[in-house]
Amino acid sequence: MANSSSGEKLLDRLVRVLEAFAPDRPELTVAQIAERADLPRTTAYRLVQDCLAVGFLTRQHGTLRLGVRLWELANRASATRDLRQVAMPFLEDLNQLLRQHVQLSVLHEDEVLILERHSRPGAAINNASVASRLPVHRTSMGMVLLAFAPAPVQAGYIGRHEGLLAARHGDVRRELAEIRRRGYATFDGLIDPTTTGAAAPVLGPDGAAVAAIGVVIPRDSDSLQVVAMALMTAARGIGRALQEGAAPN
Amino acid sequence: MANSSSGEKLLDRLVRVLEAFAPDRPELTVAQIAERADLPRTTAYRLVQDCLAVGFLTRQHGTLRLGVRLWELANRASATRDLRQVAMPFLEDLNQLLRQHVQLSVLHEDEVLILERHSRPGAAINNASVASRLPVHRTSMGMVLLAFAPAPVQAGYIGRHEGLLAARHGDVRRELAEIRRRGYATFDGLIDPTTTGAAAPVLGPDGAAVAAIGVVIPRDSDSLQVVAMALMTAARGIGRALQEGAAPN
Repeated sequence: MANSSSGEKLLDRLVRVLEAFAPDRPELTVAQIAERADLPRTTAYRLVQDCLAVGFLTRQHGTLRLGVRLWELANRASATRDLRQVAMPFLEDLNQLLRQHVQLSVLHEDEVLILERHSRPGAAINNASVASRLPVHRTSMGMVLLAFAPAPVQAGYIGRHEGLLAARHGDVRRELAEIRRRGYATFDGLIDPTTTGAAAPVLGPDGAAVAAIGVVIPRDSDSLQVVAMALMTAARGIGRALQEGAAPN
Repeated sequence: MANSSSGEKLLDRLVRVLEAFAPDRPELTVAQIAERADLPRTTAYRLVQDCLAVGFLTRQHGTLRLGVRLWELANRASATRDLRQVAMPFLEDLNQLLRQHVQLSVLHEDEVLILERHSRPGAAINNASVASRLPVHRTSMGMVLLAFAPAPVQAGYIGRHEGLLAARHGDVRRELAEIRRRGYATFDGLIDPTTTGAAAPVLGPDGAAVAAIGVVIPRDSDSLQVVAMALMTAARGIGRALQEGAAPN
């Protein structure tokens, strides 16, 4: 028991060390890690040494980066691996047909987690990168994931975010029902006000969303319905391919 | 010190638990984890509980999978992230032009680690999936990474693998020199004898390979030189885009 509790604490500290790294700060010194992870410098130093030993971190030119070994362990049997692999050709199709950034995401811990992204030079601005998170109730992917979430998940989210949702225009439940009826969601740009997002759900066999695909287009584009139709078509293709892949043969 | 040593051991055990999961066994029970990680059942059980608490593992229908949280931490500031992001559009170009699987890889701990892969229905057989590893001296990507590795890295690899390399036909040093001269490598299918691999190096500013891109084509294809030219052209594009991205502005 003592062991377990100290072990758990070590994993908590490990997570804090790994969390110190982010897309805009991929290289850190031990002092920076200690500060960002809120750990004493000596504790951070020891944990960094342990991480270096197992390849979770690597040292380059005197600074530390996340190690390739960590990436490998997390990716080779990841729960999202099949989804990404199955969705990839469909994302490419959309990328070519729509000539805009296309994204694949899931609902995770009340946020939208970006799993994959296909970029295009010259496309509308979109800064959401792979493995980054977006708020649910302010993005088209988030709203479509919520609209097509199982009832308890949707109710749970709404319950936990009453305050945030109250600040929005309109009744969120009515909005979600409308998204379900229409089959897709749109939402004006979170990061850039000149853009609009559109998203469609990838549905599992039970009719609940397992993922969302989304695209960012210039705001006031008159092609929104065309884009939405492409998204819904590709999303159905992904859903079917997932079930075919999962079927025993 | 005692702390550090016990901490290191815990990270070692953590790595063994995570390593128990693989593409062909993404779902495991605690008993299976204990067996594959060579840990006492009670130790495995405690570590699994700790991993569940921080999201490194998730429980689904009574079995355990790698957690989305682990994927997120490993991917959001990964050292290979820029490389993958820069290479992606070039891989798509090749995928469309060559109509075959295209892969991006790096040399890591004397093996070829697959970072990204673009698949195509109907393309030649290729089972190398993302985050999987291939042997260096039996694949075109491995040979090209070795041929364009810095001299000490190449010599180190050859020194560590004398036995394996002796079993090959021909002198490996001469072969590597020939690959350098030609600018690409080819190698008959490791996984499927009816295929051939071709690979070209992505070079850094110092002229050493930072990555390789490769394609698998049907063996005895008369288009090998055409494929190699496409690979070399795309590899140069990736190398240039990487340096432009890294340039201060």
